[in-house]
Amino acid sequence: MKTKGLPYLALAGTLVAGLALGAVGTRLGSDTSIGGTLAAASAARGLTGEQAEAALSTFVAPGEHDDYLMFASGGHSGQVHVVGIPSMQLLKTIPVFTPDSWAGYGYGADWGEQILEQGSDPNKNEALRWGDAHHPALSETDGDYDGRWLYINDRANGRIAMVDLRDFKTKQILDLPNLQSSHGGVFTTPDTEYVHISAKTPTPVWSESGYADLADYQEAFRGMSTWVPVNQETGRMELDGGFQIELPPYNQDLADVGKGASDGWAFLNSYNIEMATGGTLEGDAPLETGAIASDHDYLHIINWHKAAEVVADGKYVEHNGMRVIPLDTAIEEGLLYFAPEPRNPHGVDVQPGGEYISVSGKLDPSAIVYSFEKIQDAIASEDFVGTDVYGVPILDFDAVVEAQVELGGGPLHTQFDGNGYAYTSLFVESAIAKWALDAPAGGEEPWTLVDKIDVHYSVGHLAMAHGDTSEPHGNWLVSLNKLSVDRHQPVGTLHPQNFQLIGVDGEKPKLLKDMPVGFGEPHYAQIMSRERIKDSVWTTYPAGTDLLTMERSEHAVAAGEERIEEVDGELHVYATAKRSHFVPDVIRAKEGQKVVVHLTSVEEAPDITHGFAIPAYNIQASLDPGETVTMEFEASRTGSFGFYCTEFCSALHLEMQGWLLVEPA
Amino acid sequence: MKTKGLPYLALAGTLVAGLALGAVGTRLGSDTSIGGTLAAASAARGLTGEQAEAALSTFVAPGEHDDYLMFASGGHSGQVHVVGIPSMQLLKTIPVFTPDSWAGYGYGADWGEQILEQGSDPNKNEALRWGDAHHPALSETDGDYDGRWLYINDRANGRIAMVDLRDFKTKQILDLPNLQSSHGGVFTTPDTEYVHISAKTPTPVWSESGYADLADYQEAFRGMSTWVPVNQETGRMELDGGFQIELPPYNQDLADVGKGASDGWAFLNSYNIEMATGGTLEGDAPLETGAIASDHDYLHIINWHKAAEVVADGKYVEHNGMRVIPLDTAIEEGLLYFAPEPRNPHGVDVQPGGEYISVSGKLDPSAIVYSFEKIQDAIASEDFVGTDVYGVPILDFDAVVEAQVELGGGPLHTQFDGNGYAYTSLFVESAIAKWALDAPAGGEEPWTLVDKIDVHYSVGHLAMAHGDTSEPHGNWLVSLNKLSVDRHQPVGTLHPQNFQLIGVDGEKPKLLKDMPVGFGEPHYAQIMSRERIKDSVWTTYPAGTDLLTMERSEHAVAAGEERIEEVDGELHVYATAKRSHFVPDVIRAKEGQKVVVHLTSVEEAPDITHGFAIPAYNIQASLDPGETVTMEFEASRTGSFGFYCTEFCSALHLEMQGWLLVEPA
Repeated sequence: MKTKGLPYLALAGTLVAGLALGAVGTRLGSDTSIGGTLAAASAARGLTGEQAEAALSTFVAPGEHDDYLMFASGGHSGQVHVVGIPSMQLLKTIPVFTPDSWAGYGYGADWGEQILEQGSDPNKNEALRWGDAHHPALSETDGDYDGRWLYINDRANGRIAMVDLRDFKTKQILDLPNLQSSHGGVFTTPDTEYVHISAKTPTPVWSESGYADLADYQEAFRGMSTWVPVNQETGRMELDGGFQIELPPYNQDLADVGKGASDGWAFLNSYNIEMATGGTLEGDAPLETGAIASDHDYLHIINWHKAAEVVADGKYVEHNGMRVIPLDTAIEEGLLYFAPEPRNPHGVDVQPGGEYISVSGKLDPSAIVYSFEKIQDAIASEDFVGTDVYGVPILDFDAVVEAQVELGGGPLHTQFDGNGYAYTSLFVESAIAKWALDAPAGGEEPWTLVDKIDVHYSVGHLAMAHGDTSEPHGNWLVSLNKLSVDRHQPVGTLHPQNFQLIGVDGEKPKLLKDMPVGFGEPHYAQIMSRERIKDSVWTTYPAGTDLLTMERSEHAVAAGEERIEEVDGELHVYATAKRSHFVPDVIRAKEGQKVVVHLTSVEEAPDITHGFAIPAYNIQASLDPGETVTMEFEASRTGSFGFYCTEFCSALHLEMQGWLLVEPA
Repeated sequence: MKTKGLPYLALAGTLVAGLALGAVGTRLGSDTSIGGTLAAASAARGLTGEQAEAALSTFVAPGEHDDYLMFASGGHSGQVHVVGIPSMQLLKTIPVFTPDSWAGYGYGADWGEQILEQGSDPNKNEALRWGDAHHPALSETDGDYDGRWLYINDRANGRIAMVDLRDFKTKQILDLPNLQSSHGGVFTTPDTEYVHISAKTPTPVWSESGYADLADYQEAFRGMSTWVPVNQETGRMELDGGFQIELPPYNQDLADVGKGASDGWAFLNSYNIEMATGGTLEGDAPLETGAIASDHDYLHIINWHKAAEVVADGKYVEHNGMRVIPLDTAIEEGLLYFAPEPRNPHGVDVQPGGEYISVSGKLDPSAIVYSFEKIQDAIASEDFVGTDVYGVPILDFDAVVEAQVELGGGPLHTQFDGNGYAYTSLFVESAIAKWALDAPAGGEEPWTLVDKIDVHYSVGHLAMAHGDTSEPHGNWLVSLNKLSVDRHQPVGTLHPQNFQLIGVDGEKPKLLKDMPVGFGEPHYAQIMSRERIKDSVWTTYPAGTDLLTMERSEHAVAAGEERIEEVDGELHVYATAKRSHFVPDVIRAKEGQKVVVHLTSVEEAPDITHGFAIPAYNIQASLDPGETVTMEFEASRTGSFGFYCTEFCSALHLEMQGWLLVEPA
């Protein structure tokens, strides 16, 4: 064992002693002694000098806090992961689209049940119990993260969720009509006026049965660019004020919003302008081949400010409860333009000032940089090379492209550092390319490759601190790698993925730390300074808080007000929890009786969370100090059942139990 | 920002340069240069010398592996967390009692669905969709962890799960009759002949309706010590060969198994010999008060070797499919004895050699050390002070206790280091006491307090590397703290807990690192050397593997064998997945038709996992290379639905999609 080694500790002592006695030791004083000890400790673990430096520069000492919080999607885990930077420690998993019994989300308490139910359109799906969380978007004010809310889409369905950053809990899942999946976004506009998502899988939007055959793909299937306004008091998305722009059935991929120079516009990638539909069993080409037959796809350029005006002017059709701007109207009103882009791109990323938009085709080694000014000029002068089959005007590639920068194999996503550089992930090459924009701080030639750093392995997205804002912090970059293979300690056939922390505030990017990710499949992340929530995050609730309203619940009771009422044959229990007992702790019901339990935690001290489990009825709630929840069930099963607090809330937590007695009828 | 500081890097350079030129620099060569650089890097982050040493001694450099794996329960998350030691990084979350859409466990694929269904006795509960994972137990050979299987109990229900450490996946959940909850264990016997669990909440075991009133508590309610044999080929628990020992309705708490000197015996704590049942609304004392009225509880001492013989002799009654040794028989046959213990103890822990058993009452500042030899002598000489109300003989406290060691406030759990020392968690004091057993390596007075180290905050369990074996590795100790309060970066009202890594191989225990735990509520953990699985863990499956049998599935197909068959109106799809397409990628069903999809991943490369999601039907499977799963659903909803691979399996992963067309009838 490397770490046991007492001999190494002895060596450390020798070094320290040697330095203390030596000339330089005397000259440099205690620094040198520390240096000697550290060199020995480093040697004991077999670290190189570079590794030891990395260890020190990422260590968050016990009791200290990270400088940044990274909000990473959990992919098909359906959740959001909060990671400290630079420690790369997982601080919390926030349940969003998928129930979580630890947090008491979706296991009987009204908070989670209501959100999951409201987030599942009964006409569209049975109650959805999972999601594919993809792209987190922190709310913004003046184009910078403001620490109020977090939005994230469900790629498996056309849904967006909202997490309140006061208590780090999900408060809303919104199921969007006319989308069966989502991928383009979520992004928020620079002052969080809207959140945006677009379809991933085109859908027979106008078919009543939802069915259309693939033979009618071009005619019947459509995509949708979806804009939902945000209530500035609560952060809730309000479908009523939203609108959609009908799009051709190209698979709309990622999206980014204009800012600064390009505020009011949005940019969506697409693939499969070939409108291929597969057919592998019949000997046809799979989509991965069919969708790359053409040498280009279309960057969608959308004027969302104008789209909002068009909707205000009533130029929309109402469809499934949503105001939809038909494709023809979008073309007529000049809301939608295409620009050719290299085939099958992944990310589209707007540079902090908004002047440039970067796209990379996965099968092309370059970053293509579009100039927003040139796009505007081309639109104004109607510099079109034609239209697609639906009539959408296509801008002249050469007229709108500012630069093409050759980067390497499989470029996917780009982040910016605010100092005039971009960083693009290279999936095939397992590397990150650093390249110069128009005015790099180091004075390099504009639009050139500056540096590369290897990652392990197969990087997907990148996340820079404040990377999607108008003012990125050019210090920490995280590489969200997808295939760790043999990088980590093997823990079975389902391998962890790998987040790698890269320091980018020096001259050369430095790989500092790996973080195994074996609890979800992260796609994208945003990194925000902890300063943004330092003063706004809650550590307890005011007495009797309903999480959905953040106001006092009408069902809350104070200590001493507990009671059991029988109303029209139903049993209503108004209960409290406090270390280490429930009041009441005996509930007597008759077989078949409906039981409603309103439970309030009357704790006030931070971190004294209580659970409330009735395993016989599949109920598991979790109550933070001050929280009130409601659970209801039909006492269909007879028996004498223990209920208990699932938290280790005190040394006597085991004694925090009670009885639910269901007497045979 | 602390870490940005270029000035510090400049300082580092100066130090290195200075050292290279100086006399000592020359004498010590590159070590000193490294020392200078490290001192500067440490200063840049504001670390003390001690913190910097901790950073270095726990750092696992990118690409390197941890020395140990910690398997920690997730509490009411229902899962198991695998953490690397000393990096304290979460390597994986293994779904066990609760569905996990990331792993495709419980979202339509037969692997998880079958386990969750078989683990839910339909007479006992509706399908259980969560659990309260408490006490992991690694399988053992010759009293040491052997890296084959992991067992863990569901405290909310009377259940045990088994995880196969070849693929780190759950393979069985066993619902045990005559238990409504579980807490005492899981432990495995020294060669994993049996796994043991005992009741937490006494139950009206003999009542047909499961109901009895609390007025009949003493008469009707019972606990159970449950022994289930393990199939040595598969690791599966086999209820058929199991047995239970009926116990009085004292809440049986934690348990440990004898080893070495005490092999063949087991030890269970209890609380509430008062048989209090609460009544807080009616003004009666809550259990936390009622259960501490007496100044003692009973340590249960069980001869399990003899119990197995008694069962073999047919001295049992069959009850709900389980062989139960009635309480009277247990007393008659000399299987069960009590010894007084300080009231409301938590842990009972057998010292590595098996000679001593340590117990602490939560309200008593001492560790009580029982001598197994003295227990045997007292039993042999019938040195009883009487019996309890059920007739169980009570051993004389003074006759069986070897020592009482005063430790501090709220002692809970004890681990041993193999060098003659014990470590006991002190919940109230937020500290860990190190104390000497009979022959401490350092020659201290036996049975004395040696040292204390503070932790933050409110430690519950402790876990030592190989801590529950006959040969603990006295190097790493993890403190599983419950209430972190303000220790970590605030992330809302539900606070992370805190794992603290403590180095115990030096003279003084050293706190090295905090790990926030915001993804479950860990109770206990076991720590095993990675050497034990290094050669046995699988990174892929042989082609067409069924996870439940680890053999080839009858439904597996190879590439080229894919087909769709219509059998009696049902659609049977034999499909494959490989980067980056499915065969078939178009499935045409009629409204209402039953669809069965057998999907095989024909990948062979490690880490190329594919997902298979049909969001419209709530299906989310995850297939590791070589895996075969089956999903079935009724095509009740019409529409043209995309299905897709939920993993970022290649640069063209977005193109890995297909169509499920459900035509209206």
